[in-house]
Amino acid sequence: MKKIKMGLIGFGNIGTGLVRNLENHKAIIKERCNCEVELVRIADKDITTPRNIEYNKNILTNDVYSVIDDPEIEIIVELIGGLEPARTFIADSLKKRKHVITANKAVLANFGKELFNLANENNVLLLFEGSVGGGIPIIRGLQQGICANDIKSIKGILNGTCNYILTKMTDEGSSFNTVLKEAQEKGFAEPDPTYDIEGYDSAHKIAILASIAFGQEIKYEDVFVNGISGIQSVEISFAKELGYVIKLLAIAKSHNGEVEVRVHPTLIPNDNMLASVLGVNNGILVEGDMVGETMFYGRGAGQDPTSSAIISDIMAIAQSIIEGGFHKDTRLLSLSNPKKIRPIDKLESSYYLRFIVIDRPKVMAKISSILGDHNISIESCIQKGRNVGDYVPLILTTHTAKEKAIQDAIKEIEKLDIVKEKPFLLRVEE
Amino acid sequence: MKKIKMGLIGFGNIGTGLVRNLENHKAIIKERCNCEVELVRIADKDITTPRNIEYNKNILTNDVYSVIDDPEIEIIVELIGGLEPARTFIADSLKKRKHVITANKAVLANFGKELFNLANENNVLLLFEGSVGGGIPIIRGLQQGICANDIKSIKGILNGTCNYILTKMTDEGSSFNTVLKEAQEKGFAEPDPTYDIEGYDSAHKIAILASIAFGQEIKYEDVFVNGISGIQSVEISFAKELGYVIKLLAIAKSHNGEVEVRVHPTLIPNDNMLASVLGVNNGILVEGDMVGETMFYGRGAGQDPTSSAIISDIMAIAQSIIEGGFHKDTRLLSLSNPKKIRPIDKLESSYYLRFIVIDRPKVMAKISSILGDHNISIESCIQKGRNVGDYVPLILTTHTAKEKAIQDAIKEIEKLDIVKEKPFLLRVEE
Repeated sequence: MKKIKMGLIGFGNIGTGLVRNLENHKAIIKERCNCEVELVRIADKDITTPRNIEYNKNILTNDVYSVIDDPEIEIIVELIGGLEPARTFIADSLKKRKHVITANKAVLANFGKELFNLANENNVLLLFEGSVGGGIPIIRGLQQGICANDIKSIKGILNGTCNYILTKMTDEGSSFNTVLKEAQEKGFAEPDPTYDIEGYDSAHKIAILASIAFGQEIKYEDVFVNGISGIQSVEISFAKELGYVIKLLAIAKSHNGEVEVRVHPTLIPNDNMLASVLGVNNGILVEGDMVGETMFYGRGAGQDPTSSAIISDIMAIAQSIIEGGFHKDTRLLSLSNPKKIRPIDKLESSYYLRFIVIDRPKVMAKISSILGDHNISIESCIQKGRNVGDYVPLILTTHTAKEKAIQDAIKEIEKLDIVKEKPFLLRVEE
Repeated sequence: MKKIKMGLIGFGNIGTGLVRNLENHKAIIKERCNCEVELVRIADKDITTPRNIEYNKNILTNDVYSVIDDPEIEIIVELIGGLEPARTFIADSLKKRKHVITANKAVLANFGKELFNLANENNVLLLFEGSVGGGIPIIRGLQQGICANDIKSIKGILNGTCNYILTKMTDEGSSFNTVLKEAQEKGFAEPDPTYDIEGYDSAHKIAILASIAFGQEIKYEDVFVNGISGIQSVEISFAKELGYVIKLLAIAKSHNGEVEVRVHPTLIPNDNMLASVLGVNNGILVEGDMVGETMFYGRGAGQDPTSSAIISDIMAIAQSIIEGGFHKDTRLLSLSNPKKIRPIDKLESSYYLRFIVIDRPKVMAKISSILGDHNISIESCIQKGRNVGDYVPLILTTHTAKEKAIQDAIKEIEKLDIVKEKPFLLRVEE
């Protein structure tokens, strides 16, 4: 039985989980791939910290190039994350004709085109199931499962931290800061939560999904990003009253020859499947021209779910080595004639607007008159708690309007002396 | 650019949809597979009925063997359904070294082992993404997406007709017969709905999923089947009161060296993801040892979703022909040392029981005493509508108990003179 040698770069949290799971799943890999996959070297800067798992300490090194340059190693798994030196390590591995597996969303969302082309030139695979949605097989789902479809849209809850925070705020009525602190204590949020809560993580992930779905290079910088740190309990409760929940959605749509890719907190109706995705879970709703709406759901992060994804990549490469046939997704290679990325101010959406206004007659008339001037029509309106002469929240939802018109109207409205602070806007996805 | 010739056997509803979608998706297939797939012959008994689509009438024949015997045809799609002659047509195609695609769950759930082995002996592929879950890529999800996992359980809503009926009964409080009639009028149920509502369709599908998940032959006859025709509105409303919904679940579990495979109406908690699967949609919740719980959701039937699945199979075979490498799922071939199928009376579950009893003192004491004699403990109890001396429903839910104990207890209880009719039992899945 053929033995395939493998190296690992990055022996942190996910790397440790992978080494443990590779050992536990040796029999499955052998039986399902007709070969043995042997981990022969692990490279990490830190070769002293105990990893609390059983592993062969002799294979641990701090010399990355003893992995990349080893002629016997056929598969390299990169799990150090970040842009550099990950980009260089991946590129150098591909140039040495190693198959590479990465869970590094940042490097793919910034340098994906360069790396996929490099893999192609060197006739090796670059797989990345673990980069989006943890254990949810969304990459293979798009590349093979619904590969025959013209993909219309992807709407994803791609960040477990944000979804945990928003779920808790919804269930308990707690403030953003209270829930964030609790999430940090439970290990569901990082000590510096910026990357998650400001939507950057989701933006990297949707760039990767959109690149596959639309067959063109979509980079991190192409994604409009807005995080959840501005969401107050009042938004959650008004949304509830209107029949919606608030989720951080990563959205990619293709229409009228253009592509839009954006991440922002979004009102979705209670009966949308994504509204059922609670806590740290992820869910990705994909609309294809034949399949209609289909959803992939599960744990979006963690040692074991990510190991599930990475080992599925290892098994796919092992099968290709044993049987031949790489079955590459040409959408990541034929990146000519890309559609234009539609800028956010060309967006058409319905909106949720919260104003803090003086509670007195004609306030609503003034605001709706300005909205009307910008061709924005109001769908519903809530004003809670009478407090004549003092400030109260006024919530409006609009019918479909143009983002630019909304932004212009808001600028006008915030100048009114009846309006206390900068109006707060959320987009609605029906 | 290589041309791959394809034949179709069966030009009914799904076949017609496939021919239409193949034509519409020529460019996608060409671009993503680096080849052209050409449909060169369609065989059907009926070559006269108009199909209301554009197609080349010259390729329609009633001679099936002009497809199977054509040396130029490399891929054959079988869409006639049923056991025979489908089994023979598939077998003969495989013997002629044609790759075969089928959406025929019945033939696979009865003769899968024979056919997969035949494909293997002839070094061709037998793919079947369309046989379960319509457009939902559950087959590839199990075979490739979460292939590294030891699969613990599969719980699926696999029949759109039943889910439509149960959803309507839940939303509207209507009776089974009223909703069934409406479903038939809308085309969501067949004129003879037996195959769907008695659970046979779901049983075929779960046999296929369980075979992949557990890597052993699981046939239709191994599945315990109970349909939804006995469900009354009273069940739906009591379930609701207890925080549950009723779904027809197809369940496959592997534990303690045994496998259980069953289809029956089941109470599931409102916050279970499967409770969000409404109307004609399907959802499949799979638990793997690494991935945890992951769900696949979407339209379970129809021309377009099924076309999505079948064309994904065509594209997979086209890639294998062009590039080499069949990447077969060995789980469908290495069928030695199967685990024992656990008979239903060995099941351990919690239960919902409805008795129709005389409304008088000590009724509950008698029933709970018999349950206690069989080591069954009661979790909750509802008795609605006082009507002293007349019959009223009494609902009990139990803690985990043995199926045999429940069945024995029911037999004793139904002999009591305070009990009017045969008690009604549902299983609960937490």
